[in-house]
Formats: sequence, structure tokens, C-alpha cells
Amino acid sequence: MNWEMIQAAQARLAGHARRTPLLSSPFIDQLAGRRVLIKAEPLQHTGSFKFRGAWSAISALDEEALKAGVIAFSSGNHAQGVALAARQRGTAAVIIMPADAPQLKIDNTRALGAEVVLYDRATEDRDAIGEELSQARGLTLIKPYDEPLVIAGQGTTGIEIAEQTAEAGVTSGDVLVCCGGGGLTSGIALALEVRAPGFRVRPVEPEGYDDVTRSLAEGKIRRNEQLAGGLCDAIVTPQPGNLTFPIMQRLCGPGVVVPEEDCLRAMAVAFSRLKLVLEPGGAVALAAALYHGAGIEGEAVVAIASGGNVDAEVYRMALERYGDGD
Amino acid sequence: MNWEMIQAAQARLAGHARRTPLLSSPFIDQLAGRRVLIKAEPLQHTGSFKFRGAWSAISALDEEALKAGVIAFSSGNHAQGVALAARQRGTAAVIIMPADAPQLKIDNTRALGAEVVLYDRATEDRDAIGEELSQARGLTLIKPYDEPLVIAGQGTTGIEIAEQTAEAGVTSGDVLVCCGGGGLTSGIALALEVRAPGFRVRPVEPEGYDDVTRSLAEGKIRRNEQLAGGLCDAIVTPQPGNLTFPIMQRLCGPGVVVPEEDCLRAMAVAFSRLKLVLEPGGAVALAAALYHGAGIEGEAVVAIASGGNVDAEVYRMALERYGDGD
Repeated sequence: MNWEMIQAAQARLAGHARRTPLLSSPFIDQLAGRRVLIKAEPLQHTGSFKFRGAWSAISALDEEALKAGVIAFSSGNHAQGVALAARQRGTAAVIIMPADAPQLKIDNTRALGAEVVLYDRATEDRDAIGEELSQARGLTLIKPYDEPLVIAGQGTTGIEIAEQTAEAGVTSGDVLVCCGGGGLTSGIALALEVRAPGFRVRPVEPEGYDDVTRSLAEGKIRRNEQLAGGLCDAIVTPQPGNLTFPIMQRLCGPGVVVPEEDCLRAMAVAFSRLKLVLEPGGAVALAAALYHGAGIEGEAVVAIASGGNVDAEVYRMALERYGDGD
Repeated sequence: MNWEMIQAAQARLAGHARRTPLLSSPFIDQLAGRRVLIKAEPLQHTGSFKFRGAWSAISALDEEALKAGVIAFSSGNHAQGVALAARQRGTAAVIIMPADAPQLKIDNTRALGAEVVLYDRATEDRDAIGEELSQARGLTLIKPYDEPLVIAGQGTTGIEIAEQTAEAGVTSGDVLVCCGGGGLTSGIALALEVRAPGFRVRPVEPEGYDDVTRSLAEGKIRRNEQLAGGLCDAIVTPQPGNLTFPIMQRLCGPGVVVPEEDCLRAMAVAFSRLKLVLEPGGAVALAAALYHGAGIEGEAVVAIASGGNVDAEVYRMALERYGDGD
């Protein structure tokens, strides 16, 4: 996994993924007490950065593999990214989802052309189902983060950040990244190492799901005790990836942990000041910039807004609690 | 008022206004029954296209006028655009607002550095107050739409649309524009006449406030009977401008009128499919594309999302009624 793979991914993504804007607001700068630049990945295709990694992996398949199709395990943003990328590359996508996933997510994934295979979490083995389908149909598994081609795709976000911060006259400071398995965080860190070495990348996680922060602090991979149930479930994974963790260890500063409630507040701020819809997990980095600035370095910080796939009900709750966000 | 003024405005805006993205979603294409490209002006500074016109006008002032400052009448998007543009140009802005304007809008305008002068709608004459202040302090009035420099600034949106649609491989079809006084509509029409003549610009208005549609149909300026109270108040003006109407008459197709309720539905769709916050008045063009496609021409249409400055309460209502927008 290296910089050249990110460059190659960028070439494959050109004309297919969106170059998302780097937003800002004088009101947010005032709230945070420093300049904040927000990378707006909710505006990426399928509403999150996941399309980048999916496209990167699927566009690198050889002809035979492309003809056979791909498979992924996900009930969320990765599923939608893989489904759309597969459809646009003219191949089949099978997405394995728990039968109790929200109907809206199942419907969305199907509407993007994927074949959704549901399994019972209590009685069935997800991996066995996937293995059987892959074998029978020659499908290629697209992992959500612990896969070099996927990390390379997410790393294209970092190339754009390097270009856009330079345009904005900012060349150093902390880059706060919403972190689950570490694909986006490690990809951005690899890109900035080469293209904008003045920045320091820091993973941001929700309270209670701080496996990466603890793993970095303790120097070895640590697991989350709980695995689901939080508002930020889109970015919750059991532990850092085997590929992503060493990259983060080498390149990243310490993690930042924010309470869920601050994610809802940050969602209200993004609503009112950026006109950008964030999901709770996609708001952890902005929440860190706004409300946990004490340990953050730099006159300017970059916060990645990683996704916006939130149910109307949760969004209404955020606005009901925090109104226009001030 | 001509194309050269728009080109000149573009040069003045470079590096100051944002080049907003042209968004799309396969779900929206499916809902509309054709390809829809959405110009995302809520992502412009201050949350609407109004910053373009304000910057265009203020950046064209001579040194003496710039030193004295500017004045505007507005309780909405124009006020915020003028306030920020003035601050960034290092000059003073006086904004005259009705005393019963929403506190949030007054606060926002002040927070952007403007001096807000409140007047009592029932007992005081807004124009007299403005005139007195202008005379005493040599302030330049920045009109919201019937002013060539402002139209030129809004027209830069059209240049970007010409470039972005070409990149997307679309060169003809209807361009639907949220229309109040006609500054944005006429500016875009002038830009596309030169830069992308395959498109036809059409103003879109909310039901009950269709002065431009009726004026175009009847060949002379018609007034709205009611002037306030609707959800789309951000784009409600008494009648088309004296400068903007002849331009629209020469270049635009017939107007489209949409019910308010469809704007709320379109807001929910933009939430769920674009992750973009729209205000009701900023959603009329998307509402036309989604729900009033019968009279619209082209395999692809462009819908301008003109602004996103909506109160949390109204937004929650839209999501409560229309959920995830399908």
C-alpha cells in the first residue's frame, strides 16, 4: 500500500467520482475559535466517501473478474458505494445484509441495481453465505477498508485536500477524519504525507467506540467492547484493520473522542451554516473541531464530513434539540 | 446590461465566490423521469446565490464609494450577501430591516459585520430612512435585482452551468430557475445565450406569487396581489424588475408555477438524495423538475437550487411530512 496506488486510483476515479468542495463559514470559524475547512463528502455519489474506494477496487478488476461480478458485506454506505460503482462498470453486485437492516437501506441498495441477499444474524453465518456465493459465481469480495485498492480510493480525498487547502492558503494544521476501520484515515494520511506534509492526520471516533484511539495510544490493536447501537453506527467497526493500523501508527497523531450528543450539535451547525446534511458518524470530525479544540493544533484545521446518509427521523431529532446550531 | 458585464463580473468574483457543484442522483433522475442536474447555490457563501451579485456590485465601486460604504434593504438572503461582501471588501454595510424580521436573520446579518437599522413597517417609511442615511453618509444603494452589476454577478452562475453541463455531456434542455425579481433568471439567460445557446431558461415561481409567469404570458409587467406570508418568501417580490423583465421576455421560455407543498417535498428529496439543505423558495425549480415535468422540455434539465437559508422549524416540518422524500 503506497502513494503510487493512490495516484493510480485518482486516474481511475477521474470523471467518475466527484471532486467534493472544501467548505467554510465565518460562523463556524467563530464557534471553533480558528479557521475550519470542511471536506464535504456527503456530496460524493451515494452520499459518502465510500464510492471512491468501491470505484477504485471495481475499476481495477480484470475483464474476467469484472464479468463475474462483486460481493460485499454491508448494510450501509459501503453497500451503496459498491452497488453504484458496479452498476456503472456494467457488472453485478451482490450485497449481503442482515435481514433486520432498515428497509430504506435495503431498498436503496436494490434501487442502485444490486442483488441483496438477506441473512438472519441469530441463526446464519454471514461469511459462510458469502463464501458459498463467491465460489459458485466467481464473485470478487470488495472489503470495506482492509484492502489496498479501497484505501487507495479513499486516499484520493487526501489529494483533493492537498490541492484545495493550498488554494485556500493553508499548509499546516490538524486534519480530523471520521474513523471506523481506518480506510479513509490511512488513505488520507498516505496522500498528505507526499502532497502536503505540513498537515497531521488524526482519527476521530464516537465515545464508546474508540478502538483506533486506544490502539494508537497503546501501540497495538484494541477492540471495541460494544459493536452496535450507537447513533454513529456508520463508522463503528470491531477494531482497526490489519493494513490500516500500521499506516495510522506511522503517520497519524493521537485520536480524538467525542460524545454522540456533540455529533448531533455539529449536524445542526452544518445544517445552518453549510447547508450540508451530515449523518451522526459523518459529523464526528466537525464535532471535534467545534467542541473539542483544546488538544487540536493549528490556526486552521480541516474536518472531513464523511457522509450524509441519515434517516429523516434522526435528523429531525438533531434539529429539534439544537435548532439552528448556535 | 450585456454579456461582457457578466464576463467582467466573473473576473471580479474569481477567488471570492465559490464555484458551486452541479449535483445529480440516480434516484432523482428516476423520480423525474429524465436526467436532472442541480446547481447547488446553497453551498455559495452566505447560503445563497445572492453573494455573487453583492460581490459583483461592491467590488466594482470606486475608491471613494468603497470608503463610504453601502446600504441595502433586505431581511433575507440579499442582506447576508451584502453584509459579507462588504466586510470582505473592508467597507461598511448598513442593512435596513423591518423590526419584526426574524431575530435569527437580524443576528446573522449583524454577525457578518453589518449595521442593522430596524424600522416599524406600520409607522415608518423604509425608503425615507434609507435616503436620509445614504445622503448623510454617502452610502451606495445595492439593489437586490434591478441593477446591472447585480444581474451580472448572478449571471456568473450561468457561465458555470455552461461549463459544467458541457463536462456532463448535456448541451440542451430547459434550465429551471427559482425566480423572484428576475436577477438570477435574467443573468443566467444572458450567460447561456452566449455560452450554451442550446438551453432554454424558464423562471419557476410558487403558486400565488406568479408575477413573472403572468407578465411573460401577457407581454407586460404584472404585479402579485399578495406580497408576503408564503413559505417561499425569499423569492417573492412585487413584480419583475424594469431591467430584468425585458431580458426575460427576449430570452426565456414560459414560466412554471408550483404549489408550496411541492417545494417541501422537493426539500425532502434534496435532503435524502443530494444531502443538500434547501429553503422552500430555493426548491421551486427542483419541485418543477420532479413534479411538473409534463411541460418541461429536454432529455436532461437543469434545476437551480438557489438558497438554503431555512429555519430548523420549517425544515423539520418538511421532513416530518415527506420523510425521506420518496
